[in-house]
Amino acid sequence: MQFAMTQRLLLILICGLVVATTAAAADPLPSWNDGPTKEAIVGFVENVTKSGSPDFVPENQRIATFDNDGNLWSEQPVYFQLIYALDQVKKMAPEHPEWKTQEPFASILRGDTAKVMASGKEGLMKILAATHTNMTAEEFQANVADWLKTARHPKTNRPYNEMIYQPMLELLGYLRANGFKTFIVSGGGVDFMRVFAEQTYGIPPDQVVGSSLKAKYEVKNGKPVIIKLPEINLVDDKEGKPVGIHQYIGQRPIFASGNSDGDYQMLEWTTAGEGPRFGLILHHTDGKREWAYDRDSHIGQLNKGLDDASKKGWVVIDMQKDWKVVYPFDKP
Amino acid sequence: MQFAMTQRLLLILICGLVVATTAAAADPLPSWNDGPTKEAIVGFVENVTKSGSPDFVPENQRIATFDNDGNLWSEQPVYFQLIYALDQVKKMAPEHPEWKTQEPFASILRGDTAKVMASGKEGLMKILAATHTNMTAEEFQANVADWLKTARHPKTNRPYNEMIYQPMLELLGYLRANGFKTFIVSGGGVDFMRVFAEQTYGIPPDQVVGSSLKAKYEVKNGKPVIIKLPEINLVDDKEGKPVGIHQYIGQRPIFASGNSDGDYQMLEWTTAGEGPRFGLILHHTDGKREWAYDRDSHIGQLNKGLDDASKKGWVVIDMQKDWKVVYPFDKP
Repeated sequence: MQFAMTQRLLLILICGLVVATTAAAADPLPSWNDGPTKEAIVGFVENVTKSGSPDFVPENQRIATFDNDGNLWSEQPVYFQLIYALDQVKKMAPEHPEWKTQEPFASILRGDTAKVMASGKEGLMKILAATHTNMTAEEFQANVADWLKTARHPKTNRPYNEMIYQPMLELLGYLRANGFKTFIVSGGGVDFMRVFAEQTYGIPPDQVVGSSLKAKYEVKNGKPVIIKLPEINLVDDKEGKPVGIHQYIGQRPIFASGNSDGDYQMLEWTTAGEGPRFGLILHHTDGKREWAYDRDSHIGQLNKGLDDASKKGWVVIDMQKDWKVVYPFDKP
Repeated sequence: MQFAMTQRLLLILICGLVVATTAAAADPLPSWNDGPTKEAIVGFVENVTKSGSPDFVPENQRIATFDNDGNLWSEQPVYFQLIYALDQVKKMAPEHPEWKTQEPFASILRGDTAKVMASGKEGLMKILAATHTNMTAEEFQANVADWLKTARHPKTNRPYNEMIYQPMLELLGYLRANGFKTFIVSGGGVDFMRVFAEQTYGIPPDQVVGSSLKAKYEVKNGKPVIIKLPEINLVDDKEGKPVGIHQYIGQRPIFASGNSDGDYQMLEWTTAGEGPRFGLILHHTDGKREWAYDRDSHIGQLNKGLDDASKKGWVVIDMQKDWKVVYPFDKP
């Protein structure tokens, strides 16, 4: 049987379409500009997943850890969890008339953020105790979920869980499609992040590692509850990150991604292991679409990481150059 | 077209074979005897996985937790991890001549187990400190792996990681095949269990929750390491189990399986949640194939659990009646 001319033309068109579709599907990181950063990521993933490659890593060792604040979502003008805590103080104020004269609560209620910040670690611990403890874990989670529904970021007027980085969502998905298990390892509160991490990033609660408070179990009026206590359990930052990884994940990652010197030890621990390793630093260079900050920032300071990245072989993302879009809502 | 007689016969034979194979594959728990225990397990799983059922539970909420000692592997004559610690003391003794006159080490070296046990919590803490701390996590794991290769159980002369329950392996696999994520939640040491849990039970390190020591991160001679410290971090037993579940898993299980009163709170916490829940207790009733013990046992005491099981709706496995085989090496 021979094809008539029209049939052959049709076939050529269909084949062309299939090829074009395949080519489009083949870019797993469409929001990343072509260049050395994207090439390094894709090269690493192809290398460790290629059966027979000397750098092949079995699936059960493909552990990837991601910082959250300033790495998966924004962290300016201050950590979103702090904004949550300040909002909660305002919401709880009617039940706490004594706060009108007690610092740092009085400054929060007056809207004097500078004075709140000046209250330092002691002030922050009081805010944390008031808004994060002496309640059940379920009450806390319900409060966070409510807040996420209504609170809006002061600059973009978007819900905080939309202030996430589209290129990082693609990276998480790309790694998972290649057999990686993706974890959050963040200085942020673990109970806070677990409220939105699954829906927002596709990372289930048990794959979220973060700072935590001690907790106790009790049966209250016949109902078992977990009570959040005003006592620190783990500070999952700096030296605390490899410790958190050890305690919660139980094996050393082969891929770690962060954006500040709080992630330095996580990248150091990850990339000092044997075999292929990948350390990734997000450098905030985009004052127009996001924020530009590094060595002198009051938040997400990146100093030692920039100094040592090249020596350690860590790849630095230049947000302004490497990312086609920043937020999902910026997508064309 | 018509089939010739031989072709039709062949077809019938093939169809028969397919049906028979399907029927065999349809029993996901072949080492469990038919009866109410097996029926309750299968009924629960079918109920929560049946799309459209009022009791349907989405996959990301299908969390199942299992105690380890006496529940996934044996715990007699004493916890296997204690046998590991005693073996380590003997192995380390040449470097510690002072142990010849120091208790409880002197008693261990003389083989006077009764006196070791009589040293109580203080003695156990000394053994724990000597054999589990002030070394890197990697050194500890290598020691455990070496021990598992050579140590043999005093009764069966089998490696300890073969003293596991075949019916529970089937249950783990059955739950996973139905979209459950399976976790260990054990009073045993998390670093100890993580050495063998993946190969033995198919449970990866990050899905093992257990008792733990504090740890620190440091760079030693240019090499980053995690050091195990002689300080308790979490006692993952009794009230500690729901706390461990909260801290590590971050959501309440819908299925919990244990064998002693150390698991009581885990079952209570699990089954007090809304919607369909399953609590499972393994009752050691088989003095011939394994061990028979419960209310008066010095290890794995099961007292309150037996009293309350019926009231709480927990299903009790009668090892002797419900299990066709106990260990994988007993399989016909």
